[in-house]
Amino acid sequence: MNRQQIIEQIKKKQSFLAIGLDTDINKIPKHLLKYDNPVLEFNKQIIEATQDLCISYKINTAFYECNGIKGWQALIDTFKYLPQDTFSIADAKRGDIGNTSSMYAKAFFDPAASEMDFDSVTVAPYMGEDSVKPFLDFEGKWAILLALTSNSGSHDFQQLKDGDKKFFEWVIEKSSQWANADKLMYVVGATRGEGFLDIRKYAPDNFLLVPGVGAQGGSLEDVCKYGMNKDCGLIVNSSRAIIYASAGEDFAERAREEALKVQQQMRNELQKIHF
Amino acid sequence: MNRQQIIEQIKKKQSFLAIGLDTDINKIPKHLLKYDNPVLEFNKQIIEATQDLCISYKINTAFYECNGIKGWQALIDTFKYLPQDTFSIADAKRGDIGNTSSMYAKAFFDPAASEMDFDSVTVAPYMGEDSVKPFLDFEGKWAILLALTSNSGSHDFQQLKDGDKKFFEWVIEKSSQWANADKLMYVVGATRGEGFLDIRKYAPDNFLLVPGVGAQGGSLEDVCKYGMNKDCGLIVNSSRAIIYASAGEDFAERAREEALKVQQQMRNELQKIHF
Repeated sequence: MNRQQIIEQIKKKQSFLAIGLDTDINKIPKHLLKYDNPVLEFNKQIIEATQDLCISYKINTAFYECNGIKGWQALIDTFKYLPQDTFSIADAKRGDIGNTSSMYAKAFFDPAASEMDFDSVTVAPYMGEDSVKPFLDFEGKWAILLALTSNSGSHDFQQLKDGDKKFFEWVIEKSSQWANADKLMYVVGATRGEGFLDIRKYAPDNFLLVPGVGAQGGSLEDVCKYGMNKDCGLIVNSSRAIIYASAGEDFAERAREEALKVQQQMRNELQKIHF
Repeated sequence: MNRQQIIEQIKKKQSFLAIGLDTDINKIPKHLLKYDNPVLEFNKQIIEATQDLCISYKINTAFYECNGIKGWQALIDTFKYLPQDTFSIADAKRGDIGNTSSMYAKAFFDPAASEMDFDSVTVAPYMGEDSVKPFLDFEGKWAILLALTSNSGSHDFQQLKDGDKKFFEWVIEKSSQWANADKLMYVVGATRGEGFLDIRKYAPDNFLLVPGVGAQGGSLEDVCKYGMNKDCGLIVNSSRAIIYASAGEDFAERAREEALKVQQQMRNELQKIHF
């Protein structure tokens, strides 16, 4: 899915919501455990209940890998179930030397090799240009580079400062020389809305993938106030607050209600930029 | 495998070699393609031919993930084939917010969940303390944190400087407050031997996992001169130079010859510290 198609989906659905399928078999409703693959069944019902309200699904690969071969199969099956009109994110936070990153890119972008054909992968920047480039080299695919994350540990290294720029600002500034806003997005945490002003200095045009709204305490209004650009430029993720809204048989229905609340807030924000 | 056991293996085998199973189906000898799982067959023969010469096998997960479900199965099967007396490394370069890192730790450390029970995982430091801790919380397991890598992109961010310390030095200094040398190792590239002096300032006791000797141009002698400590403190990895020494039917025999050359050099170095 290219940039223009993402923007069209945002306009059509009046939403820039990504729903995170961080599906933990210990947290899903008990009545699903009778299915052959409870995680897949959970994901299917969540997707069916929410797909008109979100423009993206983000699959956190860790939650699948931890279940071994069965988990990896659930990852592939969930990928196959994602609607064509949503932007798919493999939230895998990969990154290694060049030839190894090429293998990771194949794992998520080359269906002939791996049965998966995600639109994007999240990538860790620590190892620099040759660790990121292989993801950018795939035609029509996106790399979503970690910049400023929303966890407590983000203060340990991302905020170190060399000269006039913090480390995460160096990440954005340097990486924007490797690819433009048609190929590259950034992960930017939402715990402090004004922080988006700093990000937009270096990445005025890029889409930003924003976790940390809701459960992690960020305010959607602030994120939009400081982070939105003329193309919207935001994909805001919510995982637990939506998918675990209920642990009962009504989980999908309740997930839809939560997604709808977020989508309605987003519609208000989109009206401000005349979308 | 704990620190003392690693040291005993080094003394016994007179080696601190890790062999990297970066097994690419396009590079293995053609006669193996007749097997059900050529990658696994290749790995088995390499392991059988080299296990008395190395103390560790490092499995690069990317090379398995890129083959989808079959690849993940080959990863599990290769893990199961690793000799008990070798230190096993899942070279996965994972790292995410706390609860997600816990899932990655389970994926490689909890055989009840994933069928894999590696001794260690390589971890990317960018997201800070809560992204690393879950790996350290596993009893008897190791986290091997990326510090200074040997690829060209290592100059992009790892060498940025805040105050008197470079970014990779901050990584070592801060992380050494999270765990001691019984739980934590660092990845340190070998392209410049004297660089190990800086590393040893911050990590005098830790084992260092050293890629980049051989194919990537580092000198084993320099690495030992500047990086060895009284417990050896080094695990030096070689992948391609050993496993792809021949593309013919003699590949395992030739891999053994290459491993033996490295082991003999290592024996010389170990004599200098009376091991």
